Amino acid sequence: MKFDIMRDRLLDGLNNAMRAVSSKTTIPILTGIKLDVTAEGLRLTGSDADVTIQTFIQPEEDGKQIINVEAPGSIVLQARMLHEIVRKLPTNIVEIEVTDNFQTFIRSGKSEFHLIGSDANEYPQLPELSNNEQFSIPSDLLKTVIRETVFAVATSESRPVLTGVHWQTTENELICVATDSHRLARRKVTVDNLPTGQNVVIPGKSLNELNKILDDSSTAVEIALTSQQVLFKTNEVLFFSRLLEGNYPDTSRLIPNEYKTNVTINGKLLLQAIDRASLLAREDRNNVVRFETVGDNSVEISSNSPEIGKVKEQIAVEQAEGEELKISFSAKYMMDALKAIDGQDVMIQFTGAMKPFILRSIHDDAILQLILPVRTY
Amino acid sequence: MKFDIMRDRLLDGLNNAMRAVSSKTTIPILTGIKLDVTAEGLRLTGSDADVTIQTFIQPEEDGKQIINVEAPGSIVLQARMLHEIVRKLPTNIVEIEVTDNFQTFIRSGKSEFHLIGSDANEYPQLPELSNNEQFSIPSDLLKTVIRETVFAVATSESRPVLTGVHWQTTENELICVATDSHRLARRKVTVDNLPTGQNVVIPGKSLNELNKILDDSSTAVEIALTSQQVLFKTNEVLFFSRLLEGNYPDTSRLIPNEYKTNVTINGKLLLQAIDRASLLAREDRNNVVRFETVGDNSVEISSNSPEIGKVKEQIAVEQAEGEELKISFSAKYMMDALKAIDGQDVMIQFTGAMKPFILRSIHDDAILQLILPVRTY
Repeated sequence: MKFDIMRDRLLDGLNNAMRAVSSKTTIPILTGIKLDVTAEGLRLTGSDADVTIQTFIQPEEDGKQIINVEAPGSIVLQARMLHEIVRKLPTNIVEIEVTDNFQTFIRSGKSEFHLIGSDANEYPQLPELSNNEQFSIPSDLLKTVIRETVFAVATSESRPVLTGVHWQTTENELICVATDSHRLARRKVTVDNLPTGQNVVIPGKSLNELNKILDDSSTAVEIALTSQQVLFKTNEVLFFSRLLEGNYPDTSRLIPNEYKTNVTINGKLLLQAIDRASLLAREDRNNVVRFETVGDNSVEISSNSPEIGKVKEQIAVEQAEGEELKISFSAKYMMDALKAIDGQDVMIQFTGAMKPFILRSIHDDAILQLILPVRTY
Repeated sequence: MKFDIMRDRLLDGLNNAMRAVSSKTTIPILTGIKLDVTAEGLRLTGSDADVTIQTFIQPEEDGKQIINVEAPGSIVLQARMLHEIVRKLPTNIVEIEVTDNFQTFIRSGKSEFHLIGSDANEYPQLPELSNNEQFSIPSDLLKTVIRETVFAVATSESRPVLTGVHWQTTENELICVATDSHRLARRKVTVDNLPTGQNVVIPGKSLNELNKILDDSSTAVEIALTSQQVLFKTNEVLFFSRLLEGNYPDTSRLIPNEYKTNVTINGKLLLQAIDRASLLAREDRNNVVRFETVGDNSVEISSNSPEIGKVKEQIAVEQAEGEELKISFSAKYMMDALKAIDGQDVMIQFTGAMKPFILRSIHDDAILQLILPVRTY
């Protein structure tokens, strides 16, 4: 195996593939990056067994020579070391040569590194994905969907299936739900040519990593779901994630159908007030703030911490209808939900101080956030 | 105590005073910031007992009203909480009022915080500094002097006096020395009207904090040294630090007078080559690289790590004179020294493979870096 490559492109590819490599892996070969070079180009693969990321670099881009292959081949090189070396090489041309016994030479300018590689045949094979049952979503929309749901997954492993986001498809709608059993985030997306009846749980950790790789463009991301794996495919990257096993609970029954108090309010002002109130709520460890309707045109946010002090603040509302209400909830859950709705005017619908309440954007019915209150009154 | 203040200026002041407040303090009142408000303005004091930072905000700046004092007074408020509250207040006008029993109200817009303060009389008094024996250095030069020396202080407390930087004055020169007994950094600065015979050791930690507060302007920083304390005074901040006790070792004898090998080399290229070599040196825990003269016009930098691999690289030198040399040293110490010299051409003067060697800028005799080699050949 021997080839030259432009350092900057190799570094871009490594930056992506590295995201899947974990220093905590118990499988030694997965501390490495696999390089496969053929006349078609260089494929880089990184994996932590749950997530696998592949990037492909073509020999020519926009008429510019990127790779010059003298001899094809494959090798696994220690990921962190390879990345650091490539980052620090003195010139923009890198030569990589593998000789007997996986001895690898990396040359650039007058600098020569000699690394001991590993046999690429020992690197785990990727599962084959059939080509049917695909659909696609623009990259920026996919990022939004992830951002609006993934924060609500459970962080504890006591019910592993809740650490993922539930994706279900109907004829033309993808429904994404996450819950940690104290709050729930649901986002619906209209998608053309959707394979119906899909029902998978994607690990929250994988979606967070995917979100870092996706760009804010409207380029389509192709998505292929199978019973064990999901593949997200962009122009540059193949992102594979295993799926979570187990049945996701039916969450539709949690969402109330009728409401006793409706409050429409500027989401940004409410977020800032909750943020201030949470300064004192946080000190008390439980992070609970109180929310109280004051007549038809304002609400009061308050919290206290016996040893430090207390805070209260009134905010004007756009509209308040229905019964008077005093309710307490986690400042963190409320702030997460308001951030997901992203500063728009929100409608908050309550069914009483001890019942779950929901938040929606007044502009957009696609997103729904549900929060369980805390008993303090 | 009752006054209004512009939020932005209060926040600036808190940002500075907060730097001295440590969450690890064992003295409860030092988790607070002291506010003293008089008709002359607001003084903020933060301290961790070693370093004390005071900032002063005047009632008027550039004809603009900053503070409006209704009733003077003093209070100590929990530093981190006060800082977070002020940072998040909804409007740019803040009212602070202290009533009976140190009850403190912070109001801004429709938001009202109520904090439990502490008695300002319990806050430690600052030492009185006599006004003689002062001198001044431009802020940017003082930052440079700190940057060029403080990295070389000892991090272990086994000889506490070595955790500080030794400042000595002669008639017109301030000499700053730091050493951890494996390497040494010395910087001389010509200063007018210097009080001679000063001899103090300033904690490295204090100088690092001071460096963050100083700006890159040529504004004079006034410096007052006493036997226990040093005060750095800028337009905005009074920065007090305790001094370290104990006699600083005489380091002048460590610096060799004659040399057997002189190498002049581009500091930036050498730094980058050492950085690359240290990638492998680091893996071996000892971080040692080898340096070898190759004829009169180049040197070879190399290192190896038996399990990972090895690296070598030749660099052209401007000039090499004297005996051939093979020497090994800590990559970290060499990189620290080259960074202090800041990318300029350096002259490295060796007295043999087992003797300390020195680095100087070829443009500037004020800075000297000394490193002890490591025995490997």
